[in-house]
Amino acid sequence: MKRKKPSNIKAKQSIPATERQTAKDDSEMTALALQRGDLSPAMQAYFAKCQEKLGFVPNVLSAYAFDNAKLEAFVAMYNDLMLAPSGLSKLEREMIAVAVSSVNRCYYCLVAHGAAVRALSGDPALGELMVMNYRAARLSKRQRAMLDFATKLTAEPWSIEESDREALRKVGFSEREIWDIAAVAGFYNMSNRVASATDMRPNSVYHGQAR
Amino acid sequence: MKRKKPSNIKAKQSIPATERQTAKDDSEMTALALQRGDLSPAMQAYFAKCQEKLGFVPNVLSAYAFDNAKLEAFVAMYNDLMLAPSGLSKLEREMIAVAVSSVNRCYYCLVAHGAAVRALSGDPALGELMVMNYRAARLSKRQRAMLDFATKLTAEPWSIEESDREALRKVGFSEREIWDIAAVAGFYNMSNRVASATDMRPNSVYHGQAR
Amino acid sequence: MKRKKPSNIKAKQSIPATERQTAKDDSEMTALALQRGDLSPAMQAYFAKCQEKLGFVPNVLSAYAFDNAKLEAFVAMYNDLMLAPSGLSKLEREMIAVAVSSVNRCYYCLVAHGAAVRALSGDPALGELMVMNYRAARLSKRQRAMLDFATKLTAEPWSIEESDREALRKVGFSEREIWDIAAVAGFYNMSNRVASATDMRPNSVYHGQAR
Amino acid sequence: MKRKKPSNIKAKQSIPATERQTAKDDSEMTALALQRGDLSPAMQAYFAKCQEKLGFVPNVLSAYAFDNAKLEAFVAMYNDLMLAPSGLSKLEREMIAVAVSSVNRCYYCLVAHGAAVRALSGDPALGELMVMNYRAARLSKRQRAMLDFATKLTAEPWSIEESDREALRKVGFSEREIWDIAAVAGFYNMSNRVASATDMRPNSVYHGQAR
Amino acid sequence: MKRKKPSNIKAKQSIPATERQTAKDDSEMTALALQRGDLSPAMQAYFAKCQEKLGFVPNVLSAYAFDNAKLEAFVAMYNDLMLAPSGLSKLEREMIAVAVSSVNRCYYCLVAHGAAVRALSGDPALGELMVMNYRAARLSKRQRAMLDFATKLTAEPWSIEESDREALRKVGFSEREIWDIAAVAGFYNMSNRVASATDMRPNSVYHGQAR
Amino acid sequence: MKRKKPSNIKAKQSIPATERQTAKDDSEMTALALQRGDLSPAMQAYFAKCQEKLGFVPNVLSAYAFDNAKLEAFVAMYNDLMLAPSGLSKLEREMIAVAVSSVNRCYYCLVAHGAAVRALSGDPALGELMVMNYRAARLSKRQRAMLDFATKLTAEPWSIEESDREALRKVGFSEREIWDIAAVAGFYNMSNRVASATDMRPNSVYHGQAR
Repeated sequence: MKRKKPSNIKAKQSIPATERQTAKDDSEMTALALQRGDLSPAMQAYFAKCQEKLGFVPNVLSAYAFDNAKLEAFVAMYNDLMLAPSGLSKLEREMIAVAVSSVNRCYYCLVAHGAAVRALSGDPALGELMVMNYRAARLSKRQRAMLDFATKLTAEPWSIEESDREALRKVGFSEREIWDIAAVAGFYNMSNRVASATDMRPNSVYHGQAR
Repeated sequence: MKRKKPSNIKAKQSIPATERQTAKDDSEMTALALQRGDLSPAMQAYFAKCQEKLGFVPNVLSAYAFDNAKLEAFVAMYNDLMLAPSGLSKLEREMIAVAVSSVNRCYYCLVAHGAAVRALSGDPALGELMVMNYRAARLSKRQRAMLDFATKLTAEPWSIEESDREALRKVGFSEREIWDIAAVAGFYNMSNRVASATDMRPNSVYHGQAR
Repeated sequence: MKRKKPSNIKAKQSIPATERQTAKDDSEMTALALQRGDLSPAMQAYFAKCQEKLGFVPNVLSAYAFDNAKLEAFVAMYNDLMLAPSGLSKLEREMIAVAVSSVNRCYYCLVAHGAAVRALSGDPALGELMVMNYRAARLSKRQRAMLDFATKLTAEPWSIEESDREALRKVGFSEREIWDIAAVAGFYNMSNRVASATDMRPNSVYHGQAR
Repeated sequence: MKRKKPSNIKAKQSIPATERQTAKDDSEMTALALQRGDLSPAMQAYFAKCQEKLGFVPNVLSAYAFDNAKLEAFVAMYNDLMLAPSGLSKLEREMIAVAVSSVNRCYYCLVAHGAAVRALSGDPALGELMVMNYRAARLSKRQRAMLDFATKLTAEPWSIEESDREALRKVGFSEREIWDIAAVAGFYNMSNRVASATDMRPNSVYHGQAR
Repeated sequence: MKRKKPSNIKAKQSIPATERQTAKDDSEMTALALQRGDLSPAMQAYFAKCQEKLGFVPNVLSAYAFDNAKLEAFVAMYNDLMLAPSGLSKLEREMIAVAVSSVNRCYYCLVAHGAAVRALSGDPALGELMVMNYRAARLSKRQRAMLDFATKLTAEPWSIEESDREALRKVGFSEREIWDIAAVAGFYNMSNRVASATDMRPNSVYHGQAR
Repeated sequence: MKRKKPSNIKAKQSIPATERQTAKDDSEMTALALQRGDLSPAMQAYFAKCQEKLGFVPNVLSAYAFDNAKLEAFVAMYNDLMLAPSGLSKLEREMIAVAVSSVNRCYYCLVAHGAAVRALSGDPALGELMVMNYRAARLSKRQRAMLDFATKLTAEPWSIEESDREALRKVGFSEREIWDIAAVAGFYNMSNRVASATDMRPNSVYHGQAR
């Protein structure tokens, strides 16, 4: 689908750069005054790889970099959950990330993982739907059940019962995939809170990606 | 601020056009099977003007077009609230529209008015912030008070009291401007519900505007 | 059914008129200091007709009268929604108005439209039920479904989906009537918020009507 | 203040008596099929006194009458809380009853105690305000603090702390009066639930009292 | 089931007795400064019986003892509800007490009645489950339905309808037993609020009972 | 403080072992049928150390043991957060764990970390208070502010702002300690959800520890 940019929408470019919402997001990444710690060679290499592959180091990593042990633990868990083999596709894991972050209204995660959904799906509107209201998306039964579980687990975890797990099994998820849905949803419930607690700012580059 | 599109974010363009989230949004605008009614000359002219100025007719107008009287009433109120002279700038009125729609998680209004905030401000991130969590935006005290009032009025209207109005007066809003904040917030509480009740779909062109 | 007024309920008439809750409701209609604007001949005639037919001008109209354009837009939309031909009876539209206003706990709308339900139905208790808890009313399946939709749309608009529309179709509502339910519910979600934002006071006469 | 009944509000008396909302409220008092038990002489005398003084036996008493011990315990607690000497006036205790019942949306208690507020105050609108939204009432600081405490205690009892008690002391309530506010609020949190659980119907006569 | 106390869990007994959470719970029972009133012989005997049978007088009784009439009314209702013959076992009534108190997060009632569930069931974990999340307990369908009703009645009493009563009848509860479930749930909704309003402290002895 | 076990509390030991709530908790640790995977030597050593030091392997570890990579990531993050040097004491970190788990009503975490609070503090009631309602505990200003932040971050993460961080700084928390509060609260928001999603059962031994 090609989107014509209608020539007659004129952005009123009246906001000086210094007042833009992203003015300091790439330099002042959180509201906490924490100095970067000494990174292990592994983490130095990881940052270099981010720079090379993405063109930037995601601010969440920079935020954790005040303490190498914390950074390594976060990276290990993130990489396992989001990148390791799973019955859930990478896109599905990112969809969970955004739908959970929408319940929690986490600015950092919605921007960063919204971009990932756009990029992985090639469908910009899918990213917007995950941010705004996943119920309005045109999803397969499988993906709808997956997000229903992840968002219920986010909003009222005490109410999850066997019937909720059965609903996942019924659309074909295996025991291991149910774990993975829970673990990814859980992980973003953690990350959303670390980000909100620290006013973590997303790298400004995310906003324009894969639009 | 120029955003370099990092060359190494590769959108996996694997989703066929027919499965895109916006596949039918420009033709099947709501979930209700309602036939377009006869439009008055004034409304015909209004639609023509939309087409000329925007390049499209917003789907909300097409949705109301099954009944000319309803369409005219909606257009009259919309134009007065959003375009007539007010102590609130057009951008501020759109910011209220999006912050209210975020509380109500209304897909149509978040997409359409999120685009308006991006276009009017020239700051794409400001639109995202209104959609995701206005509390994370870097706002003036005036605009923050305005959105605090509008979103409290949305979420728990029964709890608005004199102290809430006083908070607006303290940052400089006049009696008339307080009305306007309330009226715009009220209007989107209406529109959000009409849109959500009918699964109204935003024109696909909005997604890419002013990014 | 005739209700005997039991002679032994003695109202302790100990509250002086100046302290009554309605003492100023007919003169100080909102908490905003806004001067009446110049009304168009059409609006002047409308106010005269209210005075003649109802014996008073509803305070909501007086509240909007600081600006003729806003008043006209409000009146046009109100009259279309509440009085124009529809598959919903006028009583049903008023029932929606009150049930929605109950969710939002809007004093103005509960008083004014509660009176309308009492008057249109000839059943005072029906008005009270809409104000207090519509679930306790003895309703037809059609009217129950109508109010379930309207109040869910009010309380959590993001959760309305095709199954909710199907529930309306199943009890016989047409596509156009579904629109009307949504539009009336939407309208009172707007009016409730304008009224709550401005502390709008209902005309004192409503309290005793159709008891 | 005299309210003229405007002659032009014509109740459309189109609802046959058998369909009125109160059709069976005086004979089928709850949704539970429980037979009246044997009442003690004391309870028989109490019912006779209700009949004589009020003209009817409140349905809540008839509902409890399936078991004399339960009835006696309820009556003893009710009479102590609502009628025994207290620093709270009887009107204030009824105001708490209605404001609490409004949070819980209890049809029985709102009807029965709303009538009591109207009768005791001689101000019909005060009863409506307690039912609809006590925050819109023109209350003394003392009564406002009293209802703020009672409704917070109802909605989120876990969040009451010393600062809440201090707010009561600051407007002049004694330790004993704080207990009484809590005890009356607590009692209606119980009664609201017994009434809602059993679909308890208010005597139809309440609707027209003290209007 | 015998639980071995693992020798290697070493409680760090570093908190001096004066700072323990229960330091004053047995002497300063509420946050209100109320003097004990004159107790009737019946109440004196009741307190003596508590001392003899339990080894202590429950603090809730001491809290009510500032006024003999209030104490007697409370005791009469409590004894009828919790100890009189009923189709609900005493354990079931205590399970309702704790599940309701968990919704309301009432420290006093959770401690005192959590101990009762442990003692009556002989299953310490059952008490913990009622306190923490009854949905995680392994319950019979009957007891699960009973607690679902009681907690829904607690959290959103306005939403209880015939279908909720039917769910109880379907698992075998009689009309009278439905009343008892409602009455016990209602009673703890009252007690929870009196306790929370007054910061009522549970007797310290409860903590270690029946572990 | 010594607690006398009152001899007259007789646990009715009528529940056969096979029906106890903990009957299978030590063997069927979650509702998901996942086979234990091959553990790395490091993880084998870690399990052995748990067995030696605690007398058992916490079920959360056994639950993660279907996949060594996930187990290692979890253990690394857990050990860093809960055991590594921090300005927060180990007891404070456990208090956060339980207060967060109370908001989320997570049975596994409340049992396991409630035991840890009891053991580390030597004050059984402190564990109960964290489980039931931390607001009822007698806490220092520092610990109260810490738990207010952690529970607000849990319940409504979107509402955390600079003023919340300032409240922590005002009672003496450093930037690093604010991070640690956020990270521990975040971690249990993750763990609570993995546990609830999988019906994770706590080892039965926890119930009796440090009472």
